[in-house]
Amino acid sequence: MTQHSYRLVGICPDQVGIVARIAGFIAAHGGSIVGASQYEDTETRMFYMRYVVDADSLAMEADAFRAAFEPVARELQMEWRLTESQRPQRVVLMVSRQDHCLADLLHLWRSGDMPFNPVCVISNHEDLRPLVEWHGVPFHCVPVPPDTEGKEAAFEATSALIRAARPDTIVLARYMQILPPWLCGEYAGRIINIHHSFLPSFAGARPYHQAFQRGVKLTGATCHYVTEELDAGPIIEQDVIRIRHHDTIDDLVRLGKDVEKTVLARGLRYHLEDRVLVQGNKTVVFS
Amino acid sequence: MTQHSYRLVGICPDQVGIVARIAGFIAAHGGSIVGASQYEDTETRMFYMRYVVDADSLAMEADAFRAAFEPVARELQMEWRLTESQRPQRVVLMVSRQDHCLADLLHLWRSGDMPFNPVCVISNHEDLRPLVEWHGVPFHCVPVPPDTEGKEAAFEATSALIRAARPDTIVLARYMQILPPWLCGEYAGRIINIHHSFLPSFAGARPYHQAFQRGVKLTGATCHYVTEELDAGPIIEQDVIRIRHHDTIDDLVRLGKDVEKTVLARGLRYHLEDRVLVQGNKTVVFS
Amino acid sequence: MTQHSYRLVGICPDQVGIVARIAGFIAAHGGSIVGASQYEDTETRMFYMRYVVDADSLAMEADAFRAAFEPVARELQMEWRLTESQRPQRVVLMVSRQDHCLADLLHLWRSGDMPFNPVCVISNHEDLRPLVEWHGVPFHCVPVPPDTEGKEAAFEATSALIRAARPDTIVLARYMQILPPWLCGEYAGRIINIHHSFLPSFAGARPYHQAFQRGVKLTGATCHYVTEELDAGPIIEQDVIRIRHHDTIDDLVRLGKDVEKTVLARGLRYHLEDRVLVQGNKTVVFS
Amino acid sequence: MTQHSYRLVGICPDQVGIVARIAGFIAAHGGSIVGASQYEDTETRMFYMRYVVDADSLAMEADAFRAAFEPVARELQMEWRLTESQRPQRVVLMVSRQDHCLADLLHLWRSGDMPFNPVCVISNHEDLRPLVEWHGVPFHCVPVPPDTEGKEAAFEATSALIRAARPDTIVLARYMQILPPWLCGEYAGRIINIHHSFLPSFAGARPYHQAFQRGVKLTGATCHYVTEELDAGPIIEQDVIRIRHHDTIDDLVRLGKDVEKTVLARGLRYHLEDRVLVQGNKTVVFS
Repeated sequence: MTQHSYRLVGICPDQVGIVARIAGFIAAHGGSIVGASQYEDTETRMFYMRYVVDADSLAMEADAFRAAFEPVARELQMEWRLTESQRPQRVVLMVSRQDHCLADLLHLWRSGDMPFNPVCVISNHEDLRPLVEWHGVPFHCVPVPPDTEGKEAAFEATSALIRAARPDTIVLARYMQILPPWLCGEYAGRIINIHHSFLPSFAGARPYHQAFQRGVKLTGATCHYVTEELDAGPIIEQDVIRIRHHDTIDDLVRLGKDVEKTVLARGLRYHLEDRVLVQGNKTVVFS
Repeated sequence: MTQHSYRLVGICPDQVGIVARIAGFIAAHGGSIVGASQYEDTETRMFYMRYVVDADSLAMEADAFRAAFEPVARELQMEWRLTESQRPQRVVLMVSRQDHCLADLLHLWRSGDMPFNPVCVISNHEDLRPLVEWHGVPFHCVPVPPDTEGKEAAFEATSALIRAARPDTIVLARYMQILPPWLCGEYAGRIINIHHSFLPSFAGARPYHQAFQRGVKLTGATCHYVTEELDAGPIIEQDVIRIRHHDTIDDLVRLGKDVEKTVLARGLRYHLEDRVLVQGNKTVVFS
Repeated sequence: MTQHSYRLVGICPDQVGIVARIAGFIAAHGGSIVGASQYEDTETRMFYMRYVVDADSLAMEADAFRAAFEPVARELQMEWRLTESQRPQRVVLMVSRQDHCLADLLHLWRSGDMPFNPVCVISNHEDLRPLVEWHGVPFHCVPVPPDTEGKEAAFEATSALIRAARPDTIVLARYMQILPPWLCGEYAGRIINIHHSFLPSFAGARPYHQAFQRGVKLTGATCHYVTEELDAGPIIEQDVIRIRHHDTIDDLVRLGKDVEKTVLARGLRYHLEDRVLVQGNKTVVFS
Repeated sequence: MTQHSYRLVGICPDQVGIVARIAGFIAAHGGSIVGASQYEDTETRMFYMRYVVDADSLAMEADAFRAAFEPVARELQMEWRLTESQRPQRVVLMVSRQDHCLADLLHLWRSGDMPFNPVCVISNHEDLRPLVEWHGVPFHCVPVPPDTEGKEAAFEATSALIRAARPDTIVLARYMQILPPWLCGEYAGRIINIHHSFLPSFAGARPYHQAFQRGVKLTGATCHYVTEELDAGPIIEQDVIRIRHHDTIDDLVRLGKDVEKTVLARGLRYHLEDRVLVQGNKTVVFS
């Protein structure tokens, strides 16, 4: 668990010899591969990979490794990144009033079960300040008024707070506002949302009411990357829970909370461990 | 398992004393209640119930019981029916070419694990004749041509076969044709379909292709009553199975078969045991 | 949700007419039945029931209802109790160092999603005092030394604290000590434990290590009533989660936490809502 | 799906450069890697791997590939095998009277959803002959008398039938006899059993009765390799299904059948696709 490792993640056009090339490069530097996943999309002929290398087995720092790998990546036309397990991501958490997802993430962080750096929490309400501050995490409240002008100003302020926090990842842990396209675009592939339905069913507002009206027998939650189109970004993780005819909308909301927090925690963990590679509007998730 | 019992199923406006009235009626005839379920819809103020009575404990036959209950039902303004566990329903099974659902249902019937009377199988293809006839069940093939006129004639022929079979229930066990509205209407609440997606996601044609394109992480199946609107009838049962980025559409089809047959078998069992009461476009399913 | 209701729960020998007798009694007092569950154990010929009555529909208080029902119960030889939905149970929570179950229960209570009265938390360590006190719940630390004499004194002190708290229910939310038989006996049927395995597999110490050694493909958790025999009491709820060959014991511990807290929360909810009736060494759980 | 591929599966002591060595070897022969899984057991320092190579991308037949790989394997001290996707395994199926698992496997085979060669079925009863022969598969009945001598003779006859069938794998699809140690030993790692409980709970006889007595809330099934110790071999796959207080032992048996057939089908598929590597008394299962 506490082993220091590098994660080499990349996407490139498929061709014979990629694995040999990558593994050969790592071996040539004495690197011990402690995990390797790859996937060839036979339709698009693209290759996705994630290699985990024991950092102690290498005679070089991360930056030296990056410099050495650069020519290999260029040759393979690979988009790639190298991350370090001991540098937890900086994460900005955004919430409204409901705290089940936020409380779960803060608990996972505090107990050491999910390593990340919760730089700050931004909310459009004051409600969760005590919870957040008890955890020693900075809390910023930026109310979002209903009018267009007020909204825009609020998102400018929000954007400034985010920029100052220099996050690797932004988590919408039940932040009940729709982010403006320019903000989504700025952090493409780095904003994670939890939607309280099994998408693509019941996108948009009040999914539990929609589910109740349709009479489905399972309700779900979806963790996905935010794109400009509402609830339509690449899906990272989903799950469902059984409901019954006697369950009211209040019951659905309550039962759904368990799925929401579990699905968000799982999806965020995959993302933080660099297991998720975006593939068009879908995701490759290496387990 | 082999106990002979009556199932008294009903829907009526809610009021104080219904349970006492029903249970009192049963007790007055010496009836031993071996199962009782009820549900009050607080929105519509309707009452749904299912009582199972040990037939041997009653000093009367089913018809005498029906006659005796009639005044009680009238007084309560109840829509009701009384069925006998020892009179398995007559079921017409309809299929196209894929046999996973049909083979499962025939197996459940033959092994005695799901009591019903498979009166006949109707298909628009000849493929499954050997399987069906090996089970000793009559098989009728009615090809369905693509043109409107031919289609209509085919459904007339199908309808005649169904009528002759006098079914209690019709099961579309992957019958890949859309039944005409007049046929759906004739057997309202008695036609059960299995749709190979987690409705309302991916209604209509080629749901596995739709699921693959959207990149969902779970695929599902839905057992529902057929209404005139395609894939929009009351849902009886649903379930899902996990899929991954490396699963092809062929994999989805294969994995989905397991969910389809399980969901159809469960939904049909609930229906055959009179556990399902239609409530508008939803269902009450007593477990 | 906020409706005031009475729950009438009972066990008696089976006979014809029980439901009519109970429902008739309720109706005679104008009571509106908003939920009813019953179960006949055909082996032991015992009858288990749970009736929920709208309190506002009755012209009497709970105590008057109890007095009126007493003769009916006597006649039916019924062991019974009547509880009020608006009188949340007094619950004593016991923990050691791990807080995932405790934090989840306190969150459910604070958010109003699980109504109970957390009278106090008792722990054999100081670690969780800040978390508990932040919630405004009294925290008592009673260290449990390893020697027999020290242990006995510790449990005397613990027992005194419990007695002072007058709990309806005691929850061992990962309290890693074995309670002495005399304490188990004093609160029989009222102490709920979460065991971190799918019982009866891996009872006793270090279940995740046992599961890892055996190479099971699922790990689980069990919520059960505590009896004098370790991990052998009536099971209320269980669930499992999938694990894989590359999961270490640390991974099992982490993955298991999710199941533990979910299973304990579900089991406790059933208990608090009077849905659980003990039947020898098994439970009837009305859903 | 119909792609012709080689599967190179191996176990060897871990060391730096294995992946590079293997992938380099494959690339040197022009091989296109279409799937690769590896796992390092940090405790035992052993390396497990499975590589899938597009057969058409290689300029050599399987045997030439084996010969070429031999020196590499020797150098790595690797236990290995190379299998061809287009050579389905020869499988002997053994059953008693219950046909749910057998019917499912034969259906999967006949529909092309699980490629294997069902060489023959051996049973200690005549019951399933019609089903098996309808599928065109040879059926042998070898009754197993209760006395030691008769048993031994029966297993000699069974062994002769198996030997004649030259199976790669033997599947005990609910064969209710305990195989003698000498027979287990002869086909070590090649006999797959389905046990109708969530092992290690309820090993041995009548697991559903044991589960019923203990009052568990989930019942399960376990697919495992047969070893000389009863129900104690390496587990390949497990799953569970929820049961409730009103379920009788007959209900458990019926509900369990679904889990049994699903778990056996999944476990056998993993085995047939060379995804399972035995690791002491555990298994590595590459997904």
